[in-house]
Amino acid sequence: MCSSAVMEQVRTRISRRAFLGATGAAVVAGVAGGSGTAQATTIFQAQGGSLRIHDLSHTITPQFPVFPGAQPFSMATDATIEEDGFYRNNLSLTEHVGTHIDAPAHFDADGVTADRLPVENFFAPVAVINISMRAAQDADAQVVVDDILAWESRHGRLPSGAFVAMYSGWESRLSDPDSYVNQGADRALHFPGFHPDAADFLVSKRDIVGIGVDTLSLDFGASKDFGTHNTVLPAGRYGLENMANLGRVSAAGATLIVGGPKHVDASGGPSRVYAVEGGATRGMPGSLPSTGGGGMSGRR
Amino acid sequence: MCSSAVMEQVRTRISRRAFLGATGAAVVAGVAGGSGTAQATTIFQAQGGSLRIHDLSHTITPQFPVFPGAQPFSMATDATIEEDGFYRNNLSLTEHVGTHIDAPAHFDADGVTADRLPVENFFAPVAVINISMRAAQDADAQVVVDDILAWESRHGRLPSGAFVAMYSGWESRLSDPDSYVNQGADRALHFPGFHPDAADFLVSKRDIVGIGVDTLSLDFGASKDFGTHNTVLPAGRYGLENMANLGRVSAAGATLIVGGPKHVDASGGPSRVYAVEGGATRGMPGSLPSTGGGGMSGRR
Repeated sequence: MCSSAVMEQVRTRISRRAFLGATGAAVVAGVAGGSGTAQATTIFQAQGGSLRIHDLSHTITPQFPVFPGAQPFSMATDATIEEDGFYRNNLSLTEHVGTHIDAPAHFDADGVTADRLPVENFFAPVAVINISMRAAQDADAQVVVDDILAWESRHGRLPSGAFVAMYSGWESRLSDPDSYVNQGADRALHFPGFHPDAADFLVSKRDIVGIGVDTLSLDFGASKDFGTHNTVLPAGRYGLENMANLGRVSAAGATLIVGGPKHVDASGGPSRVYAVEGGATRGMPGSLPSTGGGGMSGRR
Repeated sequence: MCSSAVMEQVRTRISRRAFLGATGAAVVAGVAGGSGTAQATTIFQAQGGSLRIHDLSHTITPQFPVFPGAQPFSMATDATIEEDGFYRNNLSLTEHVGTHIDAPAHFDADGVTADRLPVENFFAPVAVINISMRAAQDADAQVVVDDILAWESRHGRLPSGAFVAMYSGWESRLSDPDSYVNQGADRALHFPGFHPDAADFLVSKRDIVGIGVDTLSLDFGASKDFGTHNTVLPAGRYGLENMANLGRVSAAGATLIVGGPKHVDASGGPSRVYAVEGGATRGMPGSLPSTGGGGMSGRR
């Protein structure tokens, strides 16, 4: 055990960029993401292994799909280097485009807005629940309570203050926005999400800060009542939608960092989200230590 | 020495939220910032001390001052819980409002845009250079080379990959936007910034990822030629403007985390920025270990 010196040493190491290695060269790995991400995963060579930073935010473009009825992203250049000496744009967008946060206030008149969410909840252990095999067969697939229990049987009880993310593989459809929204002949949308019962389980039986999805909505597309939104957000938890690169994040053991929006009265907003994980082992989640055992804390 | 186990242990600790303490209760300290920040600094009680997270982003409002000529932030509610079952807004803004990043492309036609900046540069050791006493007397105060050398004489050579921030105390003027912009009878603006010679020193003699200010511009307000912008950005480094709460960050030893914007072709954009630092010592930067000694790495 390193006891009291551990945090200090790591802080110092990061400060000194010692984890970049003796040459100071960062090793960058990963291929381009589905929506123009330059680097999906950055690997720092650390003295005791490697520190991986996953970029969980998609690049936002005017073509980025939004929930039907929402205003897409648009941009107008208002200064150019040729004419003005500098380049600058004006932006116009819904708060709910790209990889973005849903604040409690999005569905709760008494809920906190995104700009006032506690920063402590933006640094959280993340559990990734992979339903991609089921989602490939069924666009209406949902994360159910059994999926959470199966994750716990493998990785231990969800840690206190966890963020629980659904990985459905849906981002592969982003190159074709219509197939990402996936409106059926029945007019309903069809994409995966969290079942309201699973949301209720997480909110009432576990201690979470929020949930996230790699689709347009916390609820599956065919939902008629936003049951998951109405369970998670009024409970003071937040959501992240359109998350990127969750397939690269270990099922257990990574830390989520959310760079949430800071405009006043925000129902939500585009967010820069990272997952950071250490250890020299890559692609072998089973060999990473369990994140379980934290238990519930009654932190709120 | 803890050698190879350190990163792994800390990752595990953070994953388990063990740093929240046995009760799971986070101790939150700090008073409201000048522009509506709910918590300026969050302190996690760690087993080996405390981990402090400083929120370096201001809350953006329609009144938040912008550089003359830029479009202020505005917001229009397009859905309400009463009428629609959920609350949602549309946003309209310049990329350069609030705490925001300047990408190399802002001043360099061949420069990288904000959405494509390497994520590795968004995790950096931060050096805070405090010129607040001088700035209180002189609105045209600038960070000069001697300020950097004085910092180094106290804390050691700037670490490789550092981010260098100016703290001028200017944010106390945000409650009066006109005094923050501070246009004089001479029509020039008057607020502190980096002198171009200091910028050149950092870019050519040290290894930095970027510089930041707690004012409207990397250049001091009276600049006629954006000399600092034109030095830092074409060199591939980024800038952060309108940073908050830098007065709370230790002069040396903290790690900057930048949640930068991810829209395509971004000259910049509002960013959520944190500084994280460990150790049980508060308010005593002199007792923190030096971040110096990293040396130059030629990382680029």
